[in-house]
Amino acid sequence: MKLSFEKDHLMNGINIVLKAVPSKTTMPILECILIDAVSDEIKLTGNDMELGIETKVEGTILERGKIALDAKLFSDIIRKLSGENSTITIESDEKYNTTITCDKAIFQIQGKDGDEFSYIPHIERDKFITLSQFTLKEIIRQTIFSISPNDSNKMMTGELMEVTGNELKLVSLDGHRMSIRKVALKEQYSDIKVIVPGKTLGEISKILNGDNDSEVQIFFSTNHIMFEFDDTIVLSRLIEGEYFRINQMLSSDYETKVTLNRRDFMDAIDRASILVRENDKKPLILNFTDEEMELKMHSAFGTMDARLAITKFGKDLMIGFNPKFLGDALRIIDDEEVTLYMMNPKSPCFIRDEEETYIYLILPVNFNAAAI
Amino acid sequence: MKLSFEKDHLMNGINIVLKAVPSKTTMPILECILIDAVSDEIKLTGNDMELGIETKVEGTILERGKIALDAKLFSDIIRKLSGENSTITIESDEKYNTTITCDKAIFQIQGKDGDEFSYIPHIERDKFITLSQFTLKEIIRQTIFSISPNDSNKMMTGELMEVTGNELKLVSLDGHRMSIRKVALKEQYSDIKVIVPGKTLGEISKILNGDNDSEVQIFFSTNHIMFEFDDTIVLSRLIEGEYFRINQMLSSDYETKVTLNRRDFMDAIDRASILVRENDKKPLILNFTDEEMELKMHSAFGTMDARLAITKFGKDLMIGFNPKFLGDALRIIDDEEVTLYMMNPKSPCFIRDEEETYIYLILPVNFNAAAI
Repeated sequence: MKLSFEKDHLMNGINIVLKAVPSKTTMPILECILIDAVSDEIKLTGNDMELGIETKVEGTILERGKIALDAKLFSDIIRKLSGENSTITIESDEKYNTTITCDKAIFQIQGKDGDEFSYIPHIERDKFITLSQFTLKEIIRQTIFSISPNDSNKMMTGELMEVTGNELKLVSLDGHRMSIRKVALKEQYSDIKVIVPGKTLGEISKILNGDNDSEVQIFFSTNHIMFEFDDTIVLSRLIEGEYFRINQMLSSDYETKVTLNRRDFMDAIDRASILVRENDKKPLILNFTDEEMELKMHSAFGTMDARLAITKFGKDLMIGFNPKFLGDALRIIDDEEVTLYMMNPKSPCFIRDEEETYIYLILPVNFNAAAI
Repeated sequence: MKLSFEKDHLMNGINIVLKAVPSKTTMPILECILIDAVSDEIKLTGNDMELGIETKVEGTILERGKIALDAKLFSDIIRKLSGENSTITIESDEKYNTTITCDKAIFQIQGKDGDEFSYIPHIERDKFITLSQFTLKEIIRQTIFSISPNDSNKMMTGELMEVTGNELKLVSLDGHRMSIRKVALKEQYSDIKVIVPGKTLGEISKILNGDNDSEVQIFFSTNHIMFEFDDTIVLSRLIEGEYFRINQMLSSDYETKVTLNRRDFMDAIDRASILVRENDKKPLILNFTDEEMELKMHSAFGTMDARLAITKFGKDLMIGFNPKFLGDALRIIDDEEVTLYMMNPKSPCFIRDEEETYIYLILPVNFNAAAI
């Protein structure tokens, strides 16, 4: 095999497929990037068996072939080779000895047989939706923070992706809170309901260029989801099982409705959080009265007391929250003002907009009212 | 005690003295910042008993007094309080309960008796030098990388600071290499020869504003060095003992003199280093022939071969180096071209300019010529 590339084209391709290369594995071949130039195009592939990424790279095929190269070494070498527009040639012999040349620097590294590498499985392209890269990137960002980081409940490490008519919905929850984002698609599609691993969504949102004019197609099969955009496909296994019945958790009843400036609320929460160390479960107490919210934090390090102007409808209320959960939701909302809907100190608080394009549910925490 | 500050003044002062607050200590009082407003000015102090920093902060004294506050908590609170020009008030009572107020946020934390805090010792101001903050910051940066990171030889963790007439010299060495920087002072001074802890130089170079028009005065006593600049004094213990006889290690003889582009040399070394993992002692082999230098690296990961144009005087030479040591020296030299002076594959290589304002000595490493 003998190929030549412009450095920046090759580097971009490597950076994309690297997202699917596992850092630790018992199968050394998975730590490689496959360069496939068997046909008329050059494709790079990374695959950790859960998530696989394949991308086309512009370049010249001087001699067809394929080779698997250690991903870390290969990417380090290309990154360090001179200027953006330098020409890089990669040549491998029948023993997989690979020579990488650029200007007056020559690297020789040992590659592996490309046939040992697992290709990304083929899936049918009949069931799919289309949306802008920008939208997909945004709704992932606005929900992924509330997946569960630990594996004890597999379902909570993924997100529900549901299509009904022309509506796409993403949902994540971790037992303490839930995030829902809905967007309108340009067309009507048949119903879809799958659970996508959080890792897949995290990696794909790093690769998406976030451009409003570029589209991404998402294909669904029984066990897989595939994202196709630009010259790249990302394929991932789905999480099996039935997702939580989220509609049972939702409610539009409330006794107290409060609207306030998002930025000010977030800043006050950040300040209160200074007094909380990790693993320390001190609640932030919110006391809603007419036109004012008092925030109180009391911990071993000291106390904080702050007041913010609010617009309130309904009853006065004193309620406690984990400040991190409130802060996480407020941070990713783009609106200048947010509205909270609450029933009582034991029932979930909903932060949502009028059209319900976003709904953030946060469970309150108990607090000892006498100690306030 | 009751004081008021503009947020940014107080924050700047905290950031300066924080450099002397230890993160771990058996004496909790040292984890504090002392606020001293006993007289007509407000001073903040951090002190880990090796290094002490005191800085004046602009503010209003509403009631005199002093208090020691936990440094992390205090700095976190001030950092998170609103806008740059907000007014912050700090008030403490006779039980050291401290209230920090800004806009509508009120923090209450427990302080400690300021009298328990160790003041920075007083030293005589008779022996001193003056130079620009810019110069001091630069010469620290250009020598500190070659102090020894481990304590097994205390002397190697510090730098020699020597004043002779109007010349200031900084020297660091770690057993494999040595860095010397000399600068001319504006005046003649009496001779000084002290060993300053590397940690002190590292912290002071972070605080210096690096301005060519601002000066710093350095005072010397038997056991201490004190830096005074802007509204800040930094006092540090010296390392006791007699420094290495560095003049015995220097030589102006050479058999091979090579001049080349610094940037290209550095880039080639960076590339070769890709093939070296930490703790892996693979030498970079340099082969100097007429008009060309070949760089070769051979490791378990592969080989690299590169060529650079050079101007050579004297004999051909093949010599091996730890690529990190070469790279460290080349990275902090500002000149476009560098000149190497070498005797043979067993003797040190000197990188220096004509005027010897800098001298970097690097010991070569053995290599198996047969394996090249």
